[in-house]
Amino acid sequence: MAAEIVNPASDGNTGADEDPGTAPDGTFDPAFALHRGGKMAIQATVPVRDKDDLSLAYTPGVAKVCSAIAEQPELVHDYTWKSQVVAVVTDGTAVLGLGDIGPEASLPVMEGKAILFKQFGGVDAVPIALATTDTDEIIDTVVRMAPSFGGVNLEDISAPRCFEIERRLQEALDIPVFHDDQHGTAVVTLAALRNAAKLTDRSLGQLRAVISGAGAAGVAIAKILIEAGIGDVAVCDRKGVVSADREDLTDVKRDLAGFTNKAGLTGSLEQALDGADVFIGVSGGTVPEAAVAKMAKNSLIFAMANPTPEIHPDVAHKYAAVVATGRSDFPNQINNVLAFPGIFAGAMQVRASRITEGMKLAAAEALAAVVADELSADRVIPSPFDERVAPAVTAAVAAAARAEGVARR
Amino acid sequence: MAAEIVNPASDGNTGADEDPGTAPDGTFDPAFALHRGGKMAIQATVPVRDKDDLSLAYTPGVAKVCSAIAEQPELVHDYTWKSQVVAVVTDGTAVLGLGDIGPEASLPVMEGKAILFKQFGGVDAVPIALATTDTDEIIDTVVRMAPSFGGVNLEDISAPRCFEIERRLQEALDIPVFHDDQHGTAVVTLAALRNAAKLTDRSLGQLRAVISGAGAAGVAIAKILIEAGIGDVAVCDRKGVVSADREDLTDVKRDLAGFTNKAGLTGSLEQALDGADVFIGVSGGTVPEAAVAKMAKNSLIFAMANPTPEIHPDVAHKYAAVVATGRSDFPNQINNVLAFPGIFAGAMQVRASRITEGMKLAAAEALAAVVADELSADRVIPSPFDERVAPAVTAAVAAAARAEGVARR
Repeated sequence: MAAEIVNPASDGNTGADEDPGTAPDGTFDPAFALHRGGKMAIQATVPVRDKDDLSLAYTPGVAKVCSAIAEQPELVHDYTWKSQVVAVVTDGTAVLGLGDIGPEASLPVMEGKAILFKQFGGVDAVPIALATTDTDEIIDTVVRMAPSFGGVNLEDISAPRCFEIERRLQEALDIPVFHDDQHGTAVVTLAALRNAAKLTDRSLGQLRAVISGAGAAGVAIAKILIEAGIGDVAVCDRKGVVSADREDLTDVKRDLAGFTNKAGLTGSLEQALDGADVFIGVSGGTVPEAAVAKMAKNSLIFAMANPTPEIHPDVAHKYAAVVATGRSDFPNQINNVLAFPGIFAGAMQVRASRITEGMKLAAAEALAAVVADELSADRVIPSPFDERVAPAVTAAVAAAARAEGVARR
Repeated sequence: MAAEIVNPASDGNTGADEDPGTAPDGTFDPAFALHRGGKMAIQATVPVRDKDDLSLAYTPGVAKVCSAIAEQPELVHDYTWKSQVVAVVTDGTAVLGLGDIGPEASLPVMEGKAILFKQFGGVDAVPIALATTDTDEIIDTVVRMAPSFGGVNLEDISAPRCFEIERRLQEALDIPVFHDDQHGTAVVTLAALRNAAKLTDRSLGQLRAVISGAGAAGVAIAKILIEAGIGDVAVCDRKGVVSADREDLTDVKRDLAGFTNKAGLTGSLEQALDGADVFIGVSGGTVPEAAVAKMAKNSLIFAMANPTPEIHPDVAHKYAAVVATGRSDFPNQINNVLAFPGIFAGAMQVRASRITEGMKLAAAEALAAVVADELSADRVIPSPFDERVAPAVTAAVAAAARAEGVARR
């Protein structure tokens, strides 16, 4: 038997330490108590109890496994954890609502993400917070460490760099690269919108949507809604509708103007909402009640800013048929954890080389279908703790990967 | 309750797969069986069972922990797993005796290393196999991902790049950077040699040693023996003694010639062994029995090449007072697992900014002391499964870090 050693981080000299369970200021705080020592650990899944174990798991036994992979590189998926482990990569520039707080301060979020991957998708994940915000350096770094991982989840990287980083990494690597702040949010939003449309007897094609926020989430939601067949969608930034006539657009927004806003709207968010069927807020701003009042009948309001929704659900309910938020204390929480664990689990199960648009659409459909029989205005999306979610998303994404020809087993 | 999902790597479509437990050629092989699906996993150490758990481990609760670290960066050690997780970094160029087999094929060894870290030292470790062999690129990559880790274990990187990579990373980072192929081997060798000298009633200062092999291990062993006070040490490469008069020396060997070989030996390994007290083999070559026969009385022979020692232990025993090898099926196995788990555990326990020479010497002394009362010719070093080893090394290294002023708690 090997020695059982206490974790070094919770061991040894505690003379200079606060009481475990207290916040840095010495008061008790359950969030700090829970985070003390981190939220995750490595677990050996094979025994190393004696000489015989050691000679199989390490030298000399490991040598023939290495040699086999050297001869047939695809065997790395069979004989290592590569195909079950995701790198959760950030540069700490857009962490929660806190902004650019740097790599170290982002680690508690990345660890949280990692344990959600494990808990909800059975996927191992490792936080990799980078000490660079340079686009080329981030890309180079991730490409170089990619042999160790079966997927890359980009997290909390600020726009517009996040778009280029994701695109170039997808081109460079043959494993799934997925910026969750974009696509996770987009998949869950689409799933909820599908069910909300169904509940109010409309097809997506009959709906005109307005998105507040032209960052990572807003752009990705606009794209997936168009792919899913939305009637029209206009995206607004702080200056109003992103429209082709504007002179102040970044490359990403100019691109966005090209494939959204068929109606050719211009002007403010409030103006765009006049007669709109759907409001999707991913901006952190606020929307006046008067603007909401002018939306079409049976409007669908997804006010997803956290912690303060763009319009309070109680106010939204005065006008809307369905209200969703990003908060767990109101019904219909748009929570990425409904999507990313199953998307990666499904993609990695079949060793997909990438996550296609079809796989994302399939994830949204599967997620919507979980609550199809229980549909109500307060239940257009399942709870994050609904046990049916991850298996349904996993299976749908794996099947879509096969259908789209990106599966490798 | 969250869904319990089966690990994606062992789940799903198995139609195209071999029987788990078989080698790629279809035969049963226990090493391949054990490696199927990899040897490690991530474990959440906090619960995520319900909304309340989620709101502490993830948003919104995590935000205040992130903010606290943004204000006081050193809190990252208290509230994340950083201080307990080591990156096991390789470029796959010098893997076991297999040589340059590339990053993917090296992963089984890196996973093995990671589970040994956990099993023997309670230290979490993550394999990072890099898709580059360029010195600058390796250094840049490790520096950029360093915010996520409390230590860096360099592994199986070929000489002479390993020396520069380690040195420059130590300069760039404020966490321990340790090339185990150098220093792990050196620490265990020194520990065994201390006990062998004691057993034969000599001090290290009375011994003249000859090392066969001027790669990573040979150079590091020469350095630590000198620091520990060895009488003299000559290092031999394929062309014989590394001596200042040679014209063919690399920078590393020229440096080595400057601080070894006080006696000014020249010529072959066999010539150097004439009258020597200690032979240390880390070369993979062979030594003729005639050369061993000419060593001094009570010679100490450490023939550590794997799987074939430089001289067979049965032959060595005809001349030597103590024989050690790298093999687990002979007494006195020089196994790095006796050192690296405790060295990192001790260093990280006190948040050492680096691993000093003093910490390595302390590790060797502590390791030697474990079997001090049981000393015999067949027991100059403990078994890797001796439960006293890791706690003793951990405590000694932590104490040395404090004494040397590199501890930060």
